[in-house]
Amino acid sequence: MSNPAILYTRITKVDHAQMTEAEDALAAEEPLEIRLLHGPAHNRRQQRVTVTMRTPGDDRELATGFLFTEGMIRSAADIADIRTPDNDSNLLQVSLREHVQPVLPPVQRNFYANSGCGVCGKASTADIFTPVRQRPASSVFTFPAARLLELPGILRQQQSLFENTGGLHAAALFDADGQLLLLREDIGRHNAVDKVIGAALATAGGTHLPGCLLLLSGRAGFELIQKAAMAAIPMVAAVGAPSGMAVKMAQEWDITLIGFLRQQRCNIYTNAERLTLNA
Amino acid sequence: MSNPAILYTRITKVDHAQMTEAEDALAAEEPLEIRLLHGPAHNRRQQRVTVTMRTPGDDRELATGFLFTEGMIRSAADIADIRTPDNDSNLLQVSLREHVQPVLPPVQRNFYANSGCGVCGKASTADIFTPVRQRPASSVFTFPAARLLELPGILRQQQSLFENTGGLHAAALFDADGQLLLLREDIGRHNAVDKVIGAALATAGGTHLPGCLLLLSGRAGFELIQKAAMAAIPMVAAVGAPSGMAVKMAQEWDITLIGFLRQQRCNIYTNAERLTLNA
Repeated sequence: MSNPAILYTRITKVDHAQMTEAEDALAAEEPLEIRLLHGPAHNRRQQRVTVTMRTPGDDRELATGFLFTEGMIRSAADIADIRTPDNDSNLLQVSLREHVQPVLPPVQRNFYANSGCGVCGKASTADIFTPVRQRPASSVFTFPAARLLELPGILRQQQSLFENTGGLHAAALFDADGQLLLLREDIGRHNAVDKVIGAALATAGGTHLPGCLLLLSGRAGFELIQKAAMAAIPMVAAVGAPSGMAVKMAQEWDITLIGFLRQQRCNIYTNAERLTLNA
Repeated sequence: MSNPAILYTRITKVDHAQMTEAEDALAAEEPLEIRLLHGPAHNRRQQRVTVTMRTPGDDRELATGFLFTEGMIRSAADIADIRTPDNDSNLLQVSLREHVQPVLPPVQRNFYANSGCGVCGKASTADIFTPVRQRPASSVFTFPAARLLELPGILRQQQSLFENTGGLHAAALFDADGQLLLLREDIGRHNAVDKVIGAALATAGGTHLPGCLLLLSGRAGFELIQKAAMAAIPMVAAVGAPSGMAVKMAQEWDITLIGFLRQQRCNIYTNAERLTLNA
C-alpha cells in the first residue's frame, strides 16, 4: 500500500544553468475534522471541535493529543473509542466515556470563523478553501531563471529582524526584472504574506499584483498559495519545501510554484514555462 | 524608541562542554484582534473578524492584506481608515467606505472556536491562552547536557518522511536518560506535537508526561509550550528559535526551554538548573 503521507509529482530541477525533468516526493496535507460524541447514553451529543490541515497518518493519536493539549479532556482514558464514520479518512469521531464531561470553551454565537493562518478554526473542510478568486494569473509574466537563483541572497541581506532573532519568516515581492519591491517579516508566515500584499495594495489602492513574484523564506503551504492567488500573483518561490496541496492549488490557479530555492538550485513544480533562460 | 518586534532576555549559552551567560534577542509574538466597521452611516456595524498572533509592526498592512487575501474586501480602496481604539496596540478597527459590502463567511452559530494550531480562529485575545493547566512541571527532572547536544542527530536519523519530502516537522519524546521514546511527523508543527503527546498518553492511558523531554525540529512558538505544559512536560528543546511569548510562558510554567539546538550548541532560555554537566 502506498504511504498516504507522501505524494509524487513530476518537476523541473534547476541546478545553476541546467534544467532537467525529475520525480519528486511531497508531504501530503489534507483537512481532518474532529467530532466529539459525549453525554449519557440516552442523550449523546455530537459536536465538531476542530478542522486542521495535517499530514495523513497517526490521526487517532492526533485527535487524542489535540483534545488533551487543548484541555478538553483530562486523560487519554476519557476516550471510549475513535471511529471513522462513513469511511471518510478525513473525519474522526471521538466518543467519550459516559461519565466524562468534556471541558469545551464557551460557545461563540454569531462567530465569523476566520483564522489568521487561513486554516484553523474554520468550521468545516469546505470553509478552508477561500472561494473567492480575483482573476487567473497573468500568462504574459516571465522571470529570468538566472536572477531567480540570486533571490534568496537578497532576501537574507534585507531581513533585519531575522538577523537579530533568527526567528522570523519573510515574504518579499519582486518585479519581473527581479528588483526587490517590498519585504515584510513576521513570526507567522501567513502574517508576513498578508503584510507584504497589504503594503503593496495599500500603496497602489489596488486589487491585484499580476506583475510580481512572491518570495517566501520558509515552506510553501497551500494557504500561502491561496493568498497569492487572491492577489493574482503569477509566481511564488519558496526557500523551503512546498506541500502537496500547495502544488495542487498552484496547478489549478496557473501559478508558477518553485521550491527549495537555495544554493543556486531550485525545483519548479508548476508552469515552468514562465522562467526564461536568457535574462 | 525600542523596536516592539524584538525582546531581549538573559540566556545561558552552551557550546560543546562550555556554558556562558549572555544576552539574546527574541522575536516578539503578540495577539492582534482585527475588527471591521461597515454599513451605511445611519447603521454602522462592528464585527470581530480574527485574532492572530503576530510580530508587532506593519499592523495596518497586515489588516489590509488579511481582509484582502481572505476575500472579505475586493480592493485596498474599500478601506476608509484604520484606527487603534482605546490606544490598544493589539487592536485594530478597520472602517470600510459606506457603499462597500464586505464578503463575510456564513455566521457559525454555536461554533466552538478551537483551532488546530492553538491560536487562530479563537474569538478573543483571552481565549488564546488555554486556561486549564494540569500541574507544575516536575522540579526533580534533570537531563545530561552532553546528551542534549546529540539529540538533533538522532531526530534527523529517525525522520523518515522528512527524508523523502524535506517538508515535515517532527516532535519527539525522550526519557531522562536521553533514550528516544516516540517520534511523530506532520506538515503542521502543532500537529506533530499533538500526535506525539497523544501517542504517549494513549499508550499509558495517562494524564501527564513529567519524565519526558520534548524535542522540536523547528521553532518553538508559545502554543507548543502551552501544549507541553498541559502534559506537565518539564523540558522542551527546539532546533530553531523560540519566540518571546514562548520564553515568557516557559518561565511561568517552570519549563526548561532550549533553542537553537544544533551543531553541538544551544541556548538555554529558562530553568537551566535542570541540565546536568556530568552525564
